[in-house]
Amino acid sequence: MEHHFAQRIRRVRPSAIRQLLQLGDDPSITSFGGGYPDPGLFPVAQLREVYDHVLREQGRTALQYTGTAGIPALRAQIAERMVRDGSTCGADDVLVLQGAQQGLDLVAKLLINPGDAIVTENPTFLGALVAFNPYEPDYAPVALDEDGMDMESLEQVLADTPRAKFIYAIPDFQNPTGVTLSTQRRHRLLELAHEHDLIVLEDTPYRELRFEGEQLPTLHSLDTEGRVIHLGSFSKTLAPGLRMGYAVAHRSILAKLELLKLAADTQSSTLNMTATARFLTEFDLDAHLEAVRPAYRAKRDAMVGAMAESFPAGVQFTRPEGGLFTWVTFPEGFDAAGFMAEQVLPKARVAYVPGETFFPTTSPATQASHYARFSYASVPHEQMVAGIRRLGDLLAAS
Amino acid sequence: MEHHFAQRIRRVRPSAIRQLLQLGDDPSITSFGGGYPDPGLFPVAQLREVYDHVLREQGRTALQYTGTAGIPALRAQIAERMVRDGSTCGADDVLVLQGAQQGLDLVAKLLINPGDAIVTENPTFLGALVAFNPYEPDYAPVALDEDGMDMESLEQVLADTPRAKFIYAIPDFQNPTGVTLSTQRRHRLLELAHEHDLIVLEDTPYRELRFEGEQLPTLHSLDTEGRVIHLGSFSKTLAPGLRMGYAVAHRSILAKLELLKLAADTQSSTLNMTATARFLTEFDLDAHLEAVRPAYRAKRDAMVGAMAESFPAGVQFTRPEGGLFTWVTFPEGFDAAGFMAEQVLPKARVAYVPGETFFPTTSPATQASHYARFSYASVPHEQMVAGIRRLGDLLAAS
Repeated sequence: MEHHFAQRIRRVRPSAIRQLLQLGDDPSITSFGGGYPDPGLFPVAQLREVYDHVLREQGRTALQYTGTAGIPALRAQIAERMVRDGSTCGADDVLVLQGAQQGLDLVAKLLINPGDAIVTENPTFLGALVAFNPYEPDYAPVALDEDGMDMESLEQVLADTPRAKFIYAIPDFQNPTGVTLSTQRRHRLLELAHEHDLIVLEDTPYRELRFEGEQLPTLHSLDTEGRVIHLGSFSKTLAPGLRMGYAVAHRSILAKLELLKLAADTQSSTLNMTATARFLTEFDLDAHLEAVRPAYRAKRDAMVGAMAESFPAGVQFTRPEGGLFTWVTFPEGFDAAGFMAEQVLPKARVAYVPGETFFPTTSPATQASHYARFSYASVPHEQMVAGIRRLGDLLAAS
Repeated sequence: MEHHFAQRIRRVRPSAIRQLLQLGDDPSITSFGGGYPDPGLFPVAQLREVYDHVLREQGRTALQYTGTAGIPALRAQIAERMVRDGSTCGADDVLVLQGAQQGLDLVAKLLINPGDAIVTENPTFLGALVAFNPYEPDYAPVALDEDGMDMESLEQVLADTPRAKFIYAIPDFQNPTGVTLSTQRRHRLLELAHEHDLIVLEDTPYRELRFEGEQLPTLHSLDTEGRVIHLGSFSKTLAPGLRMGYAVAHRSILAKLELLKLAADTQSSTLNMTATARFLTEFDLDAHLEAVRPAYRAKRDAMVGAMAESFPAGVQFTRPEGGLFTWVTFPEGFDAAGFMAEQVLPKARVAYVPGETFFPTTSPATQASHYARFSYASVPHEQMVAGIRRLGDLLAAS
C-alpha cells in the first residue's frame, strides 16, 4: 500500500530510541534509556479520590463532549498557575492539549510549509523532531553550552536561515542535555526573535521539577509582543497517563491552534480534564511537588555521584538543576551506539540512549557519535549505582 | 501573527455549526443541532466502579506512559469485537485512537498530498471535512439516496477523478442523513475501489446503535485486499468524554498510522484505556447496548412521528434504522439557514443544523440550501415533540 502514501511520509520512520525503549522491558537490563517519570511519585490515592468524586457527583457531564479548548475550570486553574509564574494570562488564553506533544504537532501544522526552517537547540528533544518531520521542515540547529543555547550561534544561524519560521526552545533542564538557558540569554533570544520576526515555541515539561537553584523567568513572561507559544504539561508533575498538557499564546495564534485541535481529535478527555481541575482545587499541587523534587534531586545525586566515582577521566556529564536527564560526553571519536550494542548491553546489562538520535541534522561537521542521554528518573537507587559502576568498569577497560 | 501561518491554514476556518452549537447552551432554545449522545444513557455507575478498581489495583501502571498503539488488553478486546462483527483481526491489527476523529486526521496525513482528491458521500460528516481540510485536498462528492452512496454516481466520479486517493464512507446511519449503505452496494464499492486501486476509509461511529433491521457486513469484513481502514469508536456506546476510538487496518498502513499517532500525541490516556478494557471484561457492553438501543428508537419514533404529524406535505425526512440523526429536505429553493435565523430561532426557539455545511463543495449545480440535520439524541421526549410542532406551525405559516 506504500504507493498510496503522501510525500510527507518519507520523513516518518521508526526511530532508534523506540527499539531501545523496548529493551527497557527486559527486566535483566538496567535501562537509563526511557524518559518516564518515577511512578512511585504519582499521587495515586488522591487521584483515586478525585475520579471517584467526579464520577459520583458530575458523571454525566464529565463523560459528555465539551468544547475543544477544554473545560473552563481547568483553563482557569492553568491560567492562575501561569500568572503565579510571571505571565499575564486568563482562562481564555489557555488551550488544553493531549499532552504538550500535541502542541508540537499543532504548532508545526500551523506554521510550517515544506522547506521552511525550524531553529532548534542542538541536540534537541527527539519527540519534537518526530512531531515536526511530517511537515517537511529544514532544521537550523544552534550550539548549546552549560547555559543553554549559545546566542552567537543563534545570531549566526538566524542570519543564515532566511526561511526560519520559529525557534523551538526547552529553556529549563533541556531534554536531552539537562542544561538551563540563562536569564540573560532568555532576553537575548527574544530580542533576536523580534529582529527576525519569528515565533518562539517554549516547551516546559520539566520546569516545575527544579530541585536546586533559582527558578528563571519563562520566555512567555518576558515576551511583550505575543510571539511566544508556551507549552506546559502535567505529565511530570501529576502523571503522564492522563495526557494533560496545554498551550498559552496570543489569541490570534491560540484561535487557530484550537481549530487545528478540533480537526485533530475534537477535544481532550472531559473526564481527565475534570479530574485534573478538581485535583488542582482540592489538593495542593505545589505541596505535592515539594515532596517530588527532593526525590528527583536524590536520584540526580546518586547518578552523577556514581558517574564521578566510576567513569574514567575524559568522560564528562552535566549536573542538571532539575528534570530527568544528564548528558554524557565521551571522548571525541568514541562510538556510543556501537559500544552499547557490543559491550554495554551484553556485559554490563545497562542501556542508555546514544546521543546521535537527538541531533536534527547529521553532517560530517557534526560529531554526534560520542554522546549519550541518561535518565535518573525511574531506576531504584541501588540498581542505578550498580549499573553506573558496571558501565564505568567497562569504560575503564575499553 | 497571521503572516507566519502556513499555506494550509487558509483552509482552517471556524464552521457555522460551531457557532450554532453554542446556541445549544441557551436553555430557552430546544436544540436539535448537536451530535451529542444522551448522557442519561452513559453507564456512569459501572465506570465509577471501574476507575476505582483500576486506580486501587494498578494505579501506577495506569497513570504511566505506555506504547503508542495502546495497552494490549484493550487492543485484544477490540479485536475480539471486530471478529464477532465478521472481520479477521488480532490485537496487533488495532491502533487505539483519541476518538475516531483522530483517525480522520491521521489517515489524511498519511495519504493526501495537496490537490489529491477524497471521494465522499454528498453530504458527509462535517468533522471529517474539518480534519481533511488542512491537508489541502480536493473533494469528489458522490450522490446519496436512501440506500447510501449511489454506485453509478461513484463510478462516474471515479472515472472523472484521476487524483482520487481514498473513498471516505460512513456506511451505517450516515451523518448527516441517517441512511445506510445496502449490502449490494458495499460489495460494489469495494469492486470499484479495487478497479481504481483506492484506499477505503470506513467510519462506523453509529454502527452499534442499530435499533431496527438487520446489521449489514462492514466494508472491512468484506475486504480481501487490505485496502479498508476501519474506524470505530466508544463515544456513542460508552461515553464520548473518554475519547476512545480505534483504527483497524492492514499492517503496512497501521504501522505508519502508529508513527503518525506517536508524532501527534504520543499515546491515548493510559488510564482511560485501562478503564475501558476493564469495562469490557467486567461488564457486558452488548447488554448495555441492548438497553441503549430501544431508548434511541423511542427518540427516533418521537421525532419522525412529530414531523409526520406537523410538517407540511412537501417537507421530507429520513427514517434512520439507527444512529442519532434524521435529514430533512425542504422544498427546492427553500433557504433553511435564513429561515432558521429569521423565523425558527426567534419564534419557535428551536435550532437545527442547516444542511449546506455538510456539502464538501459548493457549486451552482449543488442545491444545498434546502436541507437540515436534526438530532433526536439528547432532547427529552416532550420537549422534542413540542419543538417539532412549533417548527411545523411556522413551516405551515410560511
